[in-house]
Amino acid sequence: MRSTMMDIPLTVASIMRYGTTVFGNREVVTFTGDGTRRRSYEEAGRRAARLANALRGLGVDADQRVATFMWNNAEHLEAYLTVPSMGAVLHTLNIRLDPAEIGYIAGHAEDYAVIVDSSLAARFAEVLPHMHGIKHVIVTGDPAVGADFPGVTVHSYEDLLAAESESFAWPEVDERAAAAMCYTSGTTGRSKGVAYSHRSTYLHSLGPCLGNAFGLNERDSVLPVVPMFHANAWGLAYAGLLAGADLVMPDRYLQPGPLVKLIESERVTVAGGVPTIWLGVLAHIREAGGDLSSLRLVIAGGSAVPRSLQAAFQSELGVRILQAWGMTETSPLGSVANPPPGVTEEEAWRYREGQGRLICTLEGRLVGDGGAVLPSDGEAVGEIEVRGPWVTGSYYKDDDPGKFHDGWLRTGDVGTMDERGFIQLTDRAKDVIKSGGEWISSMMLENILMSHPDVAESAVIGIADEKWGERPLAAVVLRPGADVSAEKLREFLSGHVPRWQVPERWCFIAEIPKTSVGKFSKRQMREAYHHGDYEIVEAR
Amino acid sequence: MRSTMMDIPLTVASIMRYGTTVFGNREVVTFTGDGTRRRSYEEAGRRAARLANALRGLGVDADQRVATFMWNNAEHLEAYLTVPSMGAVLHTLNIRLDPAEIGYIAGHAEDYAVIVDSSLAARFAEVLPHMHGIKHVIVTGDPAVGADFPGVTVHSYEDLLAAESESFAWPEVDERAAAAMCYTSGTTGRSKGVAYSHRSTYLHSLGPCLGNAFGLNERDSVLPVVPMFHANAWGLAYAGLLAGADLVMPDRYLQPGPLVKLIESERVTVAGGVPTIWLGVLAHIREAGGDLSSLRLVIAGGSAVPRSLQAAFQSELGVRILQAWGMTETSPLGSVANPPPGVTEEEAWRYREGQGRLICTLEGRLVGDGGAVLPSDGEAVGEIEVRGPWVTGSYYKDDDPGKFHDGWLRTGDVGTMDERGFIQLTDRAKDVIKSGGEWISSMMLENILMSHPDVAESAVIGIADEKWGERPLAAVVLRPGADVSAEKLREFLSGHVPRWQVPERWCFIAEIPKTSVGKFSKRQMREAYHHGDYEIVEAR
Repeated sequence: MRSTMMDIPLTVASIMRYGTTVFGNREVVTFTGDGTRRRSYEEAGRRAARLANALRGLGVDADQRVATFMWNNAEHLEAYLTVPSMGAVLHTLNIRLDPAEIGYIAGHAEDYAVIVDSSLAARFAEVLPHMHGIKHVIVTGDPAVGADFPGVTVHSYEDLLAAESESFAWPEVDERAAAAMCYTSGTTGRSKGVAYSHRSTYLHSLGPCLGNAFGLNERDSVLPVVPMFHANAWGLAYAGLLAGADLVMPDRYLQPGPLVKLIESERVTVAGGVPTIWLGVLAHIREAGGDLSSLRLVIAGGSAVPRSLQAAFQSELGVRILQAWGMTETSPLGSVANPPPGVTEEEAWRYREGQGRLICTLEGRLVGDGGAVLPSDGEAVGEIEVRGPWVTGSYYKDDDPGKFHDGWLRTGDVGTMDERGFIQLTDRAKDVIKSGGEWISSMMLENILMSHPDVAESAVIGIADEKWGERPLAAVVLRPGADVSAEKLREFLSGHVPRWQVPERWCFIAEIPKTSVGKFSKRQMREAYHHGDYEIVEAR
Repeated sequence: MRSTMMDIPLTVASIMRYGTTVFGNREVVTFTGDGTRRRSYEEAGRRAARLANALRGLGVDADQRVATFMWNNAEHLEAYLTVPSMGAVLHTLNIRLDPAEIGYIAGHAEDYAVIVDSSLAARFAEVLPHMHGIKHVIVTGDPAVGADFPGVTVHSYEDLLAAESESFAWPEVDERAAAAMCYTSGTTGRSKGVAYSHRSTYLHSLGPCLGNAFGLNERDSVLPVVPMFHANAWGLAYAGLLAGADLVMPDRYLQPGPLVKLIESERVTVAGGVPTIWLGVLAHIREAGGDLSSLRLVIAGGSAVPRSLQAAFQSELGVRILQAWGMTETSPLGSVANPPPGVTEEEAWRYREGQGRLICTLEGRLVGDGGAVLPSDGEAVGEIEVRGPWVTGSYYKDDDPGKFHDGWLRTGDVGTMDERGFIQLTDRAKDVIKSGGEWISSMMLENILMSHPDVAESAVIGIADEKWGERPLAAVVLRPGADVSAEKLREFLSGHVPRWQVPERWCFIAEIPKTSVGKFSKRQMREAYHHGDYEIVEAR
């Protein structure tokens, strides 16, 4: 029996319509380092229509890909609104990748035009020679910048908009059509493309508004430190419009000092970023002071969020950090680590150190080596598989069936899940260390080491061992002025994990190599180790 | 370009899967008058599987209609979970309608089986003779009740469940298939059926969880006083499962005393019901005392919520009332009257007296007499039209094109809408009074009269007038012991509205007639007036 309900598609255009009217007086605020540029959502909507007219004029029609090479700012939000709403596909390029890789990605996605921040013109000039299908480059800000880019037609974003009408006939779009693309920042192998649909984008944008997630509402002022060029800024941009929250955009000012200044001056209530950002903010405030009292919530994710960081934010700054987990393939909001009601403070910490439960609409399960589903009992260790309406079921022009299993996405994350769906990750599948037939969690060793007062950062990789197959190698970055031996760190670890898990091999280095999105790059560490770049200290 | 996202349907089965696992330890609590029956969501899920097996055994397959004739209780929640998830269609019957009308509705919907609360057996016995297609009656509670219902096979709900397995192969269901039906309680004309889809139900269930709506979360304990037999208990039942909130069910104990007792003992945080319920609760507490301090939010809707009631709850009980607007055709959540941030207290009151803004996914517009779209400027008065994925686009087996307009639902509500979408209703379209070519808002007159200390209730209807075409007739129910003249009430009104809007004709009656869902029945008032049942006082 068919229902009688209207068949109204869930589209980015409907996010735009809602946000720019009902919350038309709320603002997207872009940091300029010493001040802000402010634009109401209503104005952003009018500019989106101008941009749509301009892109049509440049030949963007049907489902062509329009890329962005941009920081988080008002113009990037306008691209977020315009490109999917006109039926084209927004392709956010990760500005931090290697130029050749960006060129490969742009070619694979068949990007036709790209919008570039003028402050990124120098970086883009290195990328452009690797891009072969791009016809038009549109530069925001200073109209003089980039005029000499070879082989493409260069336009000024503001000049284009100024010449166009504020009225555009937004088309009806199928909710299952692609709205946006993002490529994985694979720590191994080539980047692969995920094409989000209008439907998945709309549903995912409701996620941050749910009471069990971040509860975004029109009393919020939201700072996405996490980039819009990767994994949709965790959904905060579109959710800001749906919730009527102001969006406070850091542009290129991602250092701790400017971020603290921005939070203070804009009275930001919710901010999202990777743990290293918040480590930096904490260190900055310890040194230089700062008032984060406007924040009701800091969302941290992208890599495990150490308890020590969460505890320091709570006790020193009075701010709650909420750990979230997800990946490009999950749009990316997956789980949030809210402890359940009615637990003791210490139990709550145990939940907050884990990855929490999947947000509603998503489902998870645990799968063992042979593909068998394992019990969700908090004991069995396996790979987390997820499915849901905002999870990808394939990659663009590249099936990679090894990443999928009977309709579920294999996340590549290994850990436990309890009967209420609480996830506790112990490793990336490819980072798991198998020593004498038993698994050692590199993440657990890292988290414990990073709770040592002398340790700034630590990453653990598995290295070949004649006797045990594999053993952990602990790489440690000490805090400035600190001096602690491998023996002392072994002792410290022994208080927390079984003796046989404690590494014998250590290296003290200046910095852990990071991926383009700020995660520890264990691939680079393994390469450095194999090249003999690390000075190994043996300790037993 | 197709997206790469998984094609996962939004279904009631996925609400059930999520709620009964992730929040499997949360409870549905059913009031028994002097205590409670408690059942975890996990147990409710197991019982849903038993019920599904039982219904299959009785011949329920494909999209057959399974009706309920029940109060809000654990078993009704089990029917909510089971029937749509097995692919059949849940048809909630309004137990308060006239037996013949219920029979008509059950026949129109082609109900095959019905689940009946044993406490409603006597009422159901009056309805059954009017029901012609029903094959099976399943009675909850006391297994001896209803055994003698003629012409149908009668089963005990608990006996059926006890005989079945806890495992059921829930089918894959198209998200656009019907999940549930509800008939309008038309104050005029025959009831018409709305068939909610799985998709509309899922999306609507997210509504109460949004930060700008009720922000339901797992710290909540939710009391739906509003019946599950009409308009989905405002979405609170399914939303409770998605949010992991306990559901506190009042069963048949809807009097103020038991409700206050239940709120106190279960520490209810969010409760929803029509204004008359909360007027009763307020009067009860003024008389007998009571502690509502656990409530963070009372949702009131179904008819306009007077400022005097909201103010009394706030000042006397410390509880915020949030006005919500909707109708059977909108699932029913439409708008909520949260004032925007940054307004003065007096401005906030003005917003709280109105109907607020439509929840995201819904869109509204204002349409004038000739069908022209009017400006949303807070001045123009017209009919509110809405559309969205949880709004009906037709009626079951009865098109009634007069209710739809270019893909929008004509709500039959008349009022203004400002540029930010704030709705201020002035009347039902059919209750509008047109006097000398100008409109008089019956709702405004009623609200002002009900703020008079001597007035308990007031309703205003339009009556024929030789000179002006129509004039208002004010019907007033005085508070016990109060004595106030029509002249005094005219004086009181004159302080608030233009002199020409003040009624000349008054009647003082014992009670305003109500519809089955507790709204003023102006149809009955007009009939009573035409039959000469009202003693009219003229005052000038």
